[in-house]
Amino acid sequence: MLISKLQSAKKRRNSVNWTYCLPLASLICVFWVYAAIAQAPAAPAPPTVQEQLDSLNVGLDSIWVIIAAFLVFFMNAGFALVESGFCRRKNAVNILAKNLIVFGIATVAYWAIGFAFMFGDSGGNNLIGLAGFFLGGEDNSPAIGDAYKGVFPGLSWTSIPLEAKFLFQLVFAATAATIVSGAVAERIKFIAFLIFSFLLVGIAYAVTGHWIWGGGWLADMGFYDFAGSTVVHSVGGWAALIGAAVVGPRLGRYTEDGRARAIPGHNMGFATLGCLILWLGWFGFNPGSTMDANPRLIAHIALTTNMAAATGGIAATAVAWLYLGKPDLSMIINGILAGLVSITAACAFVSMTSAAIIGAIAGVIVVFAVGFFDSLKIDDPVGATSVHLVCGAFGTLCLGIFSQADAFGAAPAPKMGLFFGGGFEQLMYQAIGVAAVGGFTVAFSFIAWYAIAAVTGGIRVHAEEEVKGLDISEHGMEAYSGFFKEALDGDQS
Amino acid sequence: MLISKLQSAKKRRNSVNWTYCLPLASLICVFWVYAAIAQAPAAPAPPTVQEQLDSLNVGLDSIWVIIAAFLVFFMNAGFALVESGFCRRKNAVNILAKNLIVFGIATVAYWAIGFAFMFGDSGGNNLIGLAGFFLGGEDNSPAIGDAYKGVFPGLSWTSIPLEAKFLFQLVFAATAATIVSGAVAERIKFIAFLIFSFLLVGIAYAVTGHWIWGGGWLADMGFYDFAGSTVVHSVGGWAALIGAAVVGPRLGRYTEDGRARAIPGHNMGFATLGCLILWLGWFGFNPGSTMDANPRLIAHIALTTNMAAATGGIAATAVAWLYLGKPDLSMIINGILAGLVSITAACAFVSMTSAAIIGAIAGVIVVFAVGFFDSLKIDDPVGATSVHLVCGAFGTLCLGIFSQADAFGAAPAPKMGLFFGGGFEQLMYQAIGVAAVGGFTVAFSFIAWYAIAAVTGGIRVHAEEEVKGLDISEHGMEAYSGFFKEALDGDQS
Amino acid sequence: MLISKLQSAKKRRNSVNWTYCLPLASLICVFWVYAAIAQAPAAPAPPTVQEQLDSLNVGLDSIWVIIAAFLVFFMNAGFALVESGFCRRKNAVNILAKNLIVFGIATVAYWAIGFAFMFGDSGGNNLIGLAGFFLGGEDNSPAIGDAYKGVFPGLSWTSIPLEAKFLFQLVFAATAATIVSGAVAERIKFIAFLIFSFLLVGIAYAVTGHWIWGGGWLADMGFYDFAGSTVVHSVGGWAALIGAAVVGPRLGRYTEDGRARAIPGHNMGFATLGCLILWLGWFGFNPGSTMDANPRLIAHIALTTNMAAATGGIAATAVAWLYLGKPDLSMIINGILAGLVSITAACAFVSMTSAAIIGAIAGVIVVFAVGFFDSLKIDDPVGATSVHLVCGAFGTLCLGIFSQADAFGAAPAPKMGLFFGGGFEQLMYQAIGVAAVGGFTVAFSFIAWYAIAAVTGGIRVHAEEEVKGLDISEHGMEAYSGFFKEALDGDQS
Repeated sequence: MLISKLQSAKKRRNSVNWTYCLPLASLICVFWVYAAIAQAPAAPAPPTVQEQLDSLNVGLDSIWVIIAAFLVFFMNAGFALVESGFCRRKNAVNILAKNLIVFGIATVAYWAIGFAFMFGDSGGNNLIGLAGFFLGGEDNSPAIGDAYKGVFPGLSWTSIPLEAKFLFQLVFAATAATIVSGAVAERIKFIAFLIFSFLLVGIAYAVTGHWIWGGGWLADMGFYDFAGSTVVHSVGGWAALIGAAVVGPRLGRYTEDGRARAIPGHNMGFATLGCLILWLGWFGFNPGSTMDANPRLIAHIALTTNMAAATGGIAATAVAWLYLGKPDLSMIINGILAGLVSITAACAFVSMTSAAIIGAIAGVIVVFAVGFFDSLKIDDPVGATSVHLVCGAFGTLCLGIFSQADAFGAAPAPKMGLFFGGGFEQLMYQAIGVAAVGGFTVAFSFIAWYAIAAVTGGIRVHAEEEVKGLDISEHGMEAYSGFFKEALDGDQS
Repeated sequence: MLISKLQSAKKRRNSVNWTYCLPLASLICVFWVYAAIAQAPAAPAPPTVQEQLDSLNVGLDSIWVIIAAFLVFFMNAGFALVESGFCRRKNAVNILAKNLIVFGIATVAYWAIGFAFMFGDSGGNNLIGLAGFFLGGEDNSPAIGDAYKGVFPGLSWTSIPLEAKFLFQLVFAATAATIVSGAVAERIKFIAFLIFSFLLVGIAYAVTGHWIWGGGWLADMGFYDFAGSTVVHSVGGWAALIGAAVVGPRLGRYTEDGRARAIPGHNMGFATLGCLILWLGWFGFNPGSTMDANPRLIAHIALTTNMAAATGGIAATAVAWLYLGKPDLSMIINGILAGLVSITAACAFVSMTSAAIIGAIAGVIVVFAVGFFDSLKIDDPVGATSVHLVCGAFGTLCLGIFSQADAFGAAPAPKMGLFFGGGFEQLMYQAIGVAAVGGFTVAFSFIAWYAIAAVTGGIRVHAEEEVKGLDISEHGMEAYSGFFKEALDGDQS
Repeated sequence: MLISKLQSAKKRRNSVNWTYCLPLASLICVFWVYAAIAQAPAAPAPPTVQEQLDSLNVGLDSIWVIIAAFLVFFMNAGFALVESGFCRRKNAVNILAKNLIVFGIATVAYWAIGFAFMFGDSGGNNLIGLAGFFLGGEDNSPAIGDAYKGVFPGLSWTSIPLEAKFLFQLVFAATAATIVSGAVAERIKFIAFLIFSFLLVGIAYAVTGHWIWGGGWLADMGFYDFAGSTVVHSVGGWAALIGAAVVGPRLGRYTEDGRARAIPGHNMGFATLGCLILWLGWFGFNPGSTMDANPRLIAHIALTTNMAAATGGIAATAVAWLYLGKPDLSMIINGILAGLVSITAACAFVSMTSAAIIGAIAGVIVVFAVGFFDSLKIDDPVGATSVHLVCGAFGTLCLGIFSQADAFGAAPAPKMGLFFGGGFEQLMYQAIGVAAVGGFTVAFSFIAWYAIAAVTGGIRVHAEEEVKGLDISEHGMEAYSGFFKEALDGDQS
């Protein structure tokens, strides 16, 4: 239209001088347009339209990520309740205290060193970040891409302020430590757990996190883990497994002929509330990992996440009913958590139907995994290893099977998975990642637990303290007052 | 700088023909402006200002709706805690398990069929949607109005992605089933409840929902229910009433001379926390039903919602104090919930003063409704019928009485209510809606409960299982371990 | 680039007539640009780009503030759980009932009078607002600054709708009353607490709030309290102190020789969950007090808030371990709350390192403050005075010590603090504010408690009712049913 008007103007070229009066208009136009778009150059110029748009985008992205971080923070309450509910009354204070103070320790550890190891500039070593301790160093976030200048290139893809990035990553890091808490519950020394948490969050989690999310070698290879089935859950799970193995089973957990004796949890109301809080928190964990207010992708991730939780819970209920004879509530809870953990890696890259399948399989796996670890006499009071390690690894592999790449709007995205025509390539990357992260975390955890044992004179409380309960022996108080205690039998009350 | 250079150019005006040099500037200007505003036409064009604005609007609307959906999801924890807290220790696992797994079942049911029945294109039948099963079919959301092309015309008024619409509607649908859970607690078979939940969410809720929110005949008539006093609460309440009536009262609930014996709840801490979680969730339920980030309307709805909760709680406290002699905590809880349920239909159309009145009346009604249902020997352990059915219907009618149409920014909006000069017209529509939805849900529930009874050999557990408690008989476990049990008397422990 | 093109155009000035055809283009350009930017002037004009940008800004700001308000609302659940968990089983219903109904009472009180006293136009008296009762009166929010015309000039700096402002302030006001609840727990009459809550929220909190946030004399002087260490916490704390002193210690709390006897809380699971809910709520309390979606400032405040909670918890754990011999869980909880309360005033003006120091000191202070009040025989069952009064005042003073003014983006901002080269000026303002607010609140509370005692025949229940427990005597019910009661000793069961 503009062009045709210009052409019609051309046709009138023989007309006379009136055109002379208009050049000034073009000058005015230049100035006026300049004023409208680029704004007056003098004084504290009001923001341009594009600057306002950019500011709104940064604002909306940040508000989304910050609120998602709050939901993930609240998962601490979920872990505290699931773990204490699944354990005995006499150890409830200990578990609650561990889950409460661990967030404080994680905050300090991740601020001081963890965030730098994970997202700091590695100087090209691809193994560990080496800059940005105490959140220091140059950073011009929310600038992104080539415009970003700073020491945290691993997070330069998201256009939010640095402190919002740190907040979101911090609440993730703390999650890894809380996973360990449950597996070693009811016999670990309080101080041993605190030290291990600092080391895990500050070092091990950060290093393997650098490989995947910080621009390290697994990311370069093509490994993907959208929200942390491996980065968070299997790492926490491996550390939990080694912790449970090193500390040994609870007294009386296995009979002399090797059979596991059930030790019932003391408060299923807490455990159920905890599960629902975790489910809520996962709506921050997975959709928030967009770190960007992309509505279509966020809604899709919320639905795949929810679907896997639903089918995980249903499958575990059905399997427990058929296999154990009753729809056991603790299996429903662990089935839901299994579905959530397993969808976390692939939530942005798979369809709702794939999510339903992944969740359902995880719900089956978790029931049998609990039995498997018991057969190894690795005593995990809350099933953390079955949920976070087994289903975390399973979910990470599922990405290589069910991925539909960028079909749901994620960018960057992995290749198509095995079932969608991509062959084994992505699945191989996923398997390498699972193995590498597992190997490192196992080695680190072994060394860390034994080093702590050397320093603290053993990571396990004495037998008489364990029988009495850690609440009295470690904290000098009880969780409940005014309720008559029932001793189920000597070592389980 | 540009200006100073232009001025220096001006000084050289004695050079000839200087005006000749400016026409080109106008061309440059045209192109430059074109480049700045409309962007380069070639290549992957960067978004225009209007496209960026539209994208931000969709983003902000979606983030609001998605976060509101998370709050509504969390209401499951509220229902689980209120219901288990109000019931006996020996049935706590059962109630917790029902409230946990029901969200999984609702997810599958609503995805497979419910959403299609509720919001799918009805082909003009105005009774039931017939397209969009498994969230399939054409849909170009977030396009709205005439620009919308797809199989979910019932939700084409809100400019958010389809999956965000589904997420928000899903968490509502699940709520209806949890309402039933409380009324039939302590004697319903686990499997019977699961099947009923699937049918309610997948069919009955969806059909009556289509009439009101899906563009069906009640919507066409002029019936309004902003956030679901009828769509969600009275539907859940009717199903609960029929369930409680069909399953019969708990053993020992009514003495031989027909008087009700109080069966105290086992954990008022859970019940109170549940009430506060529900109150929080209602801030997603009602303000989120804007499905649009309209700040003035959202704030208004949050305030009317909160005000009705406040006056409902205060009124119930006062009535219980005067009428029962003591400010009973369970009455405070039910008064708050009564206020919340009753304001839900009209929250966007009434003033804060009207909300205070509606809530206060609901707080009075609920105290007497509890007594009324007891006089009918319909045993509802948690008062779900009094809260959700009676106050849901009451609140729906209140819209016809207190509506001030679009005075607070809602669009579309009902007519003015009876007290604001609108006569009986809107009230009549509301009464027709309440009756029609009630009639359908009652008929459906009767058929469903009897069909389930036929399939499962009765919907009620055996008497000895009821006495022992459903936790042991249905789930093979107990909610609390390590606490000595107190048998209040034979059938209530 | 533009300039170089203009220059190159100049060079071709001898070229002929073709340039004549272009002047019209400049006119077209003028109109077209006008159409593109300023939009068509006729008809029901669609919003201009700037109007759309403004609307999006108001929308984003409002959504942020409203969601933050929901988080703060949820703190009621946190207070209910911490307080009931720290008290005895026999008084749990009473504490839960108080914390539940108090939000209803606060809603009515703040709507009717409190908001007007706090933010209404004072007519220049600088002491108390005198307009806007029942949220009435002129108001053209979201207009700000000079464009604002209305009766709430104290809140004219934030560009959100009036009802969103009220919602956010309401949830703050209710917090003050819940603080009192804990200190007077286990012996206060239910009715006496309800009346005091109405007076505190409606009058005392509003008056001192006017001085600081409503544009009163302390604000004029230069006193700063970003999110309410003094406005909310020390006010609640002073009222709690006077309440605890006037009502007297619980029976059996102090031995005849004046030593305090520990009365253990009945449910540490509730207390821990409550602490985590409060921590979550504080992410609305402090970052939300921006009342503006300023992403950099919000993220910074979230981090300073979280850091102080972390170091408060760690410090209290360490001190309790060293000083009491064990890492007492109730001290961990109170250490975290102490850190949160103390950072609230200065959260927007201090660095993360300063926040870590402030929190750590608060965590030490709170442990000794508990002992200090016991030495005065002021019996505060939950430590509310130590947490909210002592750490509230401490945090308010810290602003004068650690402030870095507008270094983190806050505007307006206080002067630099003592440790950052600002000398004693800001610290002096802070001390004056703490003293003035304390003096007023103490005087008001004394008068109020004694007036209520005169009206209700004493604010304390009878000794036999206290021994029996307030649940039975005040509410006619028990919190737990089905759990055998354990009487620790005569007066503590």
